[in-house]
Amino acid sequence: MFAFNSGRGGILREGRQQPVLLALCFGRGMLSSMVKAFAAREAKGKLDSFEYDPGPLGSEYVEVKVASCGLCHSDLSMLNNDWGMTSYPFVPGHEIVGRISRVGARVRHLREGQMVGVGWFAGSCMTCAECMGGDHNLCGMSEHTIVGRHGGFAEFVRAKAEWAIPLPDDLDAAKAGPLFCGGITVFNPFVILGIRPTDRIGVVGIGGLGHLALQFGRAWGCEVTAFSTTAGKEEEARGLGAHHFVATRNAETLAAHAGQLDMILVTVNVPQDWEPYLAALRAKGRLHFVGAVPEVKTSVFSMLGGQKSISASPLGSPLTVRRMLEFCARHGIEARTEHLPMSRVNEAITRLRDGRPRYRMVLDADF
Amino acid sequence: MFAFNSGRGGILREGRQQPVLLALCFGRGMLSSMVKAFAAREAKGKLDSFEYDPGPLGSEYVEVKVASCGLCHSDLSMLNNDWGMTSYPFVPGHEIVGRISRVGARVRHLREGQMVGVGWFAGSCMTCAECMGGDHNLCGMSEHTIVGRHGGFAEFVRAKAEWAIPLPDDLDAAKAGPLFCGGITVFNPFVILGIRPTDRIGVVGIGGLGHLALQFGRAWGCEVTAFSTTAGKEEEARGLGAHHFVATRNAETLAAHAGQLDMILVTVNVPQDWEPYLAALRAKGRLHFVGAVPEVKTSVFSMLGGQKSISASPLGSPLTVRRMLEFCARHGIEARTEHLPMSRVNEAITRLRDGRPRYRMVLDADF
Repeated sequence: MFAFNSGRGGILREGRQQPVLLALCFGRGMLSSMVKAFAAREAKGKLDSFEYDPGPLGSEYVEVKVASCGLCHSDLSMLNNDWGMTSYPFVPGHEIVGRISRVGARVRHLREGQMVGVGWFAGSCMTCAECMGGDHNLCGMSEHTIVGRHGGFAEFVRAKAEWAIPLPDDLDAAKAGPLFCGGITVFNPFVILGIRPTDRIGVVGIGGLGHLALQFGRAWGCEVTAFSTTAGKEEEARGLGAHHFVATRNAETLAAHAGQLDMILVTVNVPQDWEPYLAALRAKGRLHFVGAVPEVKTSVFSMLGGQKSISASPLGSPLTVRRMLEFCARHGIEARTEHLPMSRVNEAITRLRDGRPRYRMVLDADF
Repeated sequence: MFAFNSGRGGILREGRQQPVLLALCFGRGMLSSMVKAFAAREAKGKLDSFEYDPGPLGSEYVEVKVASCGLCHSDLSMLNNDWGMTSYPFVPGHEIVGRISRVGARVRHLREGQMVGVGWFAGSCMTCAECMGGDHNLCGMSEHTIVGRHGGFAEFVRAKAEWAIPLPDDLDAAKAGPLFCGGITVFNPFVILGIRPTDRIGVVGIGGLGHLALQFGRAWGCEVTAFSTTAGKEEEARGLGAHHFVATRNAETLAAHAGQLDMILVTVNVPQDWEPYLAALRAKGRLHFVGAVPEVKTSVFSMLGGQKSISASPLGSPLTVRRMLEFCARHGIEARTEHLPMSRVNEAITRLRDGRPRYRMVLDADF
C-alpha cells in the first residue's frame, strides 16, 4: 500500500515511527526529506510544529515549495473533525501557492521553478468516466489535499501534476491562494450552470466565497444582487460588484424580490428557510449551493410551475481553474486578503472562528 | 370582466342565472350556444349533467367538439379541491382530443374540421419573457383548462389557438388524449434536461405517466430502469421498454443501484425518502419530479460531491407537444387506455380512485 501512496505527502504517519519508511526514503537522504509543517494532534487542538517524511516523490506528482496558503472554513471543519474524516496529526491548508521544487519522473507539462497553485484536490485517477469527460473534480477516486494526507501549512506540499495549476504572470501570486478553493468553488457554478451575461444572479453570504462570487458575477456581465444578514456590508458588497443589496434579517425584504433571479448562489452553510429564495427565482431559475448546508427542505410545488432546480457542486475541474485564473487576470479580480506569517497560524484560526477576516486570511510561509 | 373572459368557456357561472349573459350571447343563438357537460357541484361530489353558456368565442380562441378526453390524477385533485383552487360547478377533463368546430376571428393557422388536442394549458399571454422565449408553459398568466373555467368532460371545449395542437395523421386519435397531459409531462423532461441517447434513466412509478415515460425513454435510445412498489408490474414494465426493473418495497434493492443513473424521473406524488434515489444517480445526475410531492428533504452533502440536482417541471411548451406527437407517431408510442362512454364518467373516477386503470382511462363523448 505504501508504494501506491508514496507521492501523497506522508499519509497518516510520522516519518520516524515506521522503520519500513526509512528504507524507502533512503534514496532521497533522510534529513533533506523531512517536511516542516504545522499540525493539530487532536480535534479542535492548537497547531504546533511538526515534521513528517513524505517518502519518495511519485512519478506523477510535483512537489511545491509553499509560498503562502489561504485559510478556508473547510480547514476549520476538518480541524474539528466535523465531517468525521480527519486523521491526526492533521496539517490543514488547501489554498496553496508556491514554486515547483521537484517534478516527478513522468510529468512532462510542468517544470521546476514554475509558480503554481494547489487547492482542495491533489489528484484524480485520470481514467474514470468523469476524468475522461473533463470532470476531474467529480472523480470518485480523487485525492484531497488535507484528507488522509498533509496539507499546505507546511514548507512543501505535493500534488499530482494535473492539479498543480500554473499561475498567469499578471496575477498577484501573494493573493492568489484563496482562488484555488474559495474562488473556484464560486466560479465553477457560472460555468456548469451555463450562466449568461444577460442573467440576473444573487449571492447569499458575503464572506470568503461570496466576496469573490460578487466580483465574478459583475465581470461575467450579470446583474448582481448580494444577500447578507449583515446590513453593514452593503457598501463593501457594492464595491465588490453588487448592483443591489438585500439585508436578509427581515423576511419581508426577501419577499419583495419574487420572480427576479436566474441563479442564486448560496455560499453559507447555515440551515434556513429556502422558500423565499426559491420564490426569488424566475422561471428556470437555479438555487445552487456551494456551502455544505445540512438540510434543504422544500415542496415540489415550489419548483414545478417555474421549472426550478436545487443543485450543488464542489470545486471546478483543472481546466475550469485555469480559465478562472485567466478570467481573474483579465478582469483584475482578486481575493481581499489579510496576511499573517504561517508561524502565527493559531491567531489566524481564532480570527476565522470569530468570523472577522475581510475576507480571507492568507498565511505566508516563514519556515 | 365578462368580456375579457368571453372565450374561456363559461367562467364560474351557469348560463341561465345571470341575465347579462343572455344579451351577450344573443348573436350566437340561445339554444345552440349552450354546452352540455358533466360537472361536480361540490368537492368530491359525483358528476352529473350540466349545461353552461360559454359566451361568444374570443377572437384568439378555437372551439373543439370533444371526441374523447382522458382522466388524469389532476382531475381528481381538482375535484377534491386538494389544491384550494377549484370552482364549482366543476367540469374536469384536460386530455382532450376533437375536431375544431369554430375558429376565432384572429386565428390564422388552424381551420374548422382539423383534429387537435388540448391539455392542461388553454392559453398563454404570448408576450411575456417566457412566451417570447418559447416557454409558453411557464407563462405566469397562463389559462388552465380546468381552473376557473370548464374542461373537457363536455360536448365542446375552448382554448386559445396556440394550445390547440394538430394531431399527426398517423397517430390514433382515440388513444391520443392522454398524451396532452400525462404524456407531455414526462416527455418534456427529456427535452429540457437535455437527455441523450447514451444516458441511463430511471422512472419511478409505473402508472398513467410512468408507462409513457418508459416508452419515451426506450425510443429516446436510453438504458431504462423502472422503479415500482408493485413487483407484479415487472413484465408489463419490460414490455413498455424497461431494460431493468427494481421493486422498491425493499430498501436494499435500491441501495444496490448507487451511482448508476443520469436522470430519475419521479412520476409519483407519495412522500418518501429520496436519499436512495439521489445515491442512485451518477455524477451530474438529476432527480426530476413531475408528481406534486408535498415535501422533498435532503442535505447539500447528498448533491455536492457528485454535482447533482433536484428539479421539477410542469407540462411542456406547444412546440414540445408538437415534437412529442411526431415522436410518438414515428416510434409507435401510445397510451394504453381503457375506454368508457363519457356518460359513465363516475365509474371511471371510481376506478381511478382505486388505482385500477392499466394505464389511462379515456372517456369517449356520447352526448
